[in-house]
Amino acid sequence: MSRTAVGTAHPERSFMNIVLLSGGSGKRLWPLSNDIRSKQFIKIFKQQDGSYESMVQRVYRQIKKVDSDATVTIATSKTQVSAIHNQLGDNVGISVEPCRRDTFPAIALATAYLVDVLKIDPEESVVVCPVDPYVEDDYFEALKDLAEQADKGEANLVLMGIEPTYPSEKYGYIIPVSAEHTSMVSTFKEKPTEEVAREYIAQGALWNGGVFAYKLKYVMQRAHELIEFQDYQDLFEKYDTLTKISFDYAVVEHEEKIQVQRFSGEWKDLGTWNTLTEAMEETVIGKGTMNDACENVHILNEMDVPVLAMGLHDVVISASPEGILVSDKEQSSFIKPFVDKFEQQIMFAEKSWGSYKVIDVEESSMTIKVTLNAGNAMNYHSHKNRDEVWVVLSGTGKTIVDGYEQTVKAGDVITMNAGCRHTVIATTELKLIEVQLGESISVTDKQKFELEY
Amino acid sequence: MSRTAVGTAHPERSFMNIVLLSGGSGKRLWPLSNDIRSKQFIKIFKQQDGSYESMVQRVYRQIKKVDSDATVTIATSKTQVSAIHNQLGDNVGISVEPCRRDTFPAIALATAYLVDVLKIDPEESVVVCPVDPYVEDDYFEALKDLAEQADKGEANLVLMGIEPTYPSEKYGYIIPVSAEHTSMVSTFKEKPTEEVAREYIAQGALWNGGVFAYKLKYVMQRAHELIEFQDYQDLFEKYDTLTKISFDYAVVEHEEKIQVQRFSGEWKDLGTWNTLTEAMEETVIGKGTMNDACENVHILNEMDVPVLAMGLHDVVISASPEGILVSDKEQSSFIKPFVDKFEQQIMFAEKSWGSYKVIDVEESSMTIKVTLNAGNAMNYHSHKNRDEVWVVLSGTGKTIVDGYEQTVKAGDVITMNAGCRHTVIATTELKLIEVQLGESISVTDKQKFELEY
Repeated sequence: MSRTAVGTAHPERSFMNIVLLSGGSGKRLWPLSNDIRSKQFIKIFKQQDGSYESMVQRVYRQIKKVDSDATVTIATSKTQVSAIHNQLGDNVGISVEPCRRDTFPAIALATAYLVDVLKIDPEESVVVCPVDPYVEDDYFEALKDLAEQADKGEANLVLMGIEPTYPSEKYGYIIPVSAEHTSMVSTFKEKPTEEVAREYIAQGALWNGGVFAYKLKYVMQRAHELIEFQDYQDLFEKYDTLTKISFDYAVVEHEEKIQVQRFSGEWKDLGTWNTLTEAMEETVIGKGTMNDACENVHILNEMDVPVLAMGLHDVVISASPEGILVSDKEQSSFIKPFVDKFEQQIMFAEKSWGSYKVIDVEESSMTIKVTLNAGNAMNYHSHKNRDEVWVVLSGTGKTIVDGYEQTVKAGDVITMNAGCRHTVIATTELKLIEVQLGESISVTDKQKFELEY
Repeated sequence: MSRTAVGTAHPERSFMNIVLLSGGSGKRLWPLSNDIRSKQFIKIFKQQDGSYESMVQRVYRQIKKVDSDATVTIATSKTQVSAIHNQLGDNVGISVEPCRRDTFPAIALATAYLVDVLKIDPEESVVVCPVDPYVEDDYFEALKDLAEQADKGEANLVLMGIEPTYPSEKYGYIIPVSAEHTSMVSTFKEKPTEEVAREYIAQGALWNGGVFAYKLKYVMQRAHELIEFQDYQDLFEKYDTLTKISFDYAVVEHEEKIQVQRFSGEWKDLGTWNTLTEAMEETVIGKGTMNDACENVHILNEMDVPVLAMGLHDVVISASPEGILVSDKEQSSFIKPFVDKFEQQIMFAEKSWGSYKVIDVEESSMTIKVTLNAGNAMNYHSHKNRDEVWVVLSGTGKTIVDGYEQTVKAGDVITMNAGCRHTVIATTELKLIEVQLGESISVTDKQKFELEY
């Protein structure tokens, strides 16, 4: 890969810089999304080889197909880093937000990451795009066009304007000056009522999908105007002191020179079960059966036991260790307040070293199934208020308990009293049952240590 | 309790003998019923104190309310004995069928049990009744009337004829000679079409609810005519050699002297989710939430995680460790062939000593949560092809492993290699995690032993 084409007057870019914004917790797709697994990581799209890919895997694959040399950076919180590496491998760039501070600080940090860490020329352009659009390859071709337009420098921001297919109340609207493919922006409109949306569309308005391109130096300059910082590292370190502010409010509203490029290809926002199931190729993922009297029913089952659906119409059934949703598809968009009320611990999670699943909860115990990927280890850690027992189910590895090393295999049992430091290092994939015992079991009861060896 | 009233000419019986037929596996109420938990043991009826009772508990309570001295014997297979004792206590009589041989052998065995084991005078009458009708107290008053009528000896069999409320295709019909409260039976009709049922009802036909009374000596005589046996014990021992034959075919069809008594009280057969949910006082049992857009929705959730229902109409949602059913209520009656296809191990069960639940299944391991009731013990047993590990979660007790006794409490770990004999005896209620490890884990891999102590 050569970056020498950058900065030349070559009319067609051979590669692009892209920042994918990987957002919040996504309770709208409960029970498959939860506080630590966002919707973009749910594997729902069947591939030709029969396996499933997630939204983030699909988008990443599409980018690499359209532009194999693209520099892809994912701007996200640290809770998602493990899932991103597990799903995309270790070569993807990640700009980790130490905490959530809305889109302007996030975009400023990612921009600084490209300039200061990846050493990309500030004269280059970058495209910022949500991580979860459901789109075809032409969308990514359009992103390249956006970047090329930003390269020209006619405007400081170049937005993608999506041709509306219906008068949606869910999106903001962009009013262009002209009906040409590329136009200056006249004004922006907040999410309207359906009636008002109809008027906007009659005036030639476009949906604002939150996709835009700019030269790196432009946002760096805006960032320095609004935030006192030296470089990426400095910005990263003071990130938690920054004011929450959106990119729209901090930048877009104050910018005169904004262009919009029309995009008329397929574009779906898979934010609700209704829209998500529309994009699924199959009606059943996981163990599920439905009778002939079912119409427009989708089953997404992450549990080990079967789901049977009979005589249902326009219903989505989704089951995971977190819970079970059965919803009329239209109604599923009203899910959030109900899920907010569920006070439940996280029942499963992907970690950098593998995954865990809570399989039993009692008043003074919790039992967990842990899967460590080959070559991976937990942190070396201890707990103040609980004892633990490990029973190895399969695989081989090594445990370290208060400095004492021991190779382990299926059937081996390790007991750890409260306060003792412990870890397990997987040689092959290693599965174990962890029984936690104590009066006040909590995920926050954990002290990490450097390994002494 | 005195039995001296029996055999006198006293017109009103002070107590009755009743045999409850507790039938098969009941896949129609999957996933709450399974191969070893029949529908009559599901706890669905809310009581005044907030707890729930099962069909068998409700019927038993109602019998005792109407006739506190009633001799209740449950005719059932051995797979149900633990559940019956757990739900009804140890004082209930059980006539255990060593294997299933249809209703005539079952009724003959139960009758011999009453005569030979309970030593009840063969001149006394008994009422035979399914264990799972959903009825009010007047039904049990009617059972007493049946027994009194049988006492009179005007007929050899006295049936209950239920006044039909609609032209059902699900029941057989009894055509009485007259419209009087007690009448001789003219003839029986098999389950008809709706149209034919309408004709029967116009002729004064009654539903056959499978309830009848007879003098013990009558069925004993028929049994000896059809089966070569000495007494209860002999019949029990040769039970597996008996031919499968229904009571209708073996007895009723050959009997001329049959009376029927009308019953016009409430009577429901809770055989499907549709009829069962009609009898439920609440719409949600277990963790469940529904939004205002739901109408006529029932949630029965035996899992630890929440069920959320949105915008559904006329739907039953039922979840257990066996699986999840989501069905239109009418459609739920077609469930059986689908459930027959699920090839799944039993995921939870009530045992004489407590209960167990499978919480994780891997290729070469299975993890189970075991709850032992205070004072109870597993069988002393061993496995050929698997090692096991117990981790005690709560409670106190004693383990015996190859004769070695050890008191145990929360946090204790016991390891057992294949072949070693083991049991655990609970002092208080005791919960433990059992990890089974081996290439061919099977419920049939179990040898039982007498304890040597």
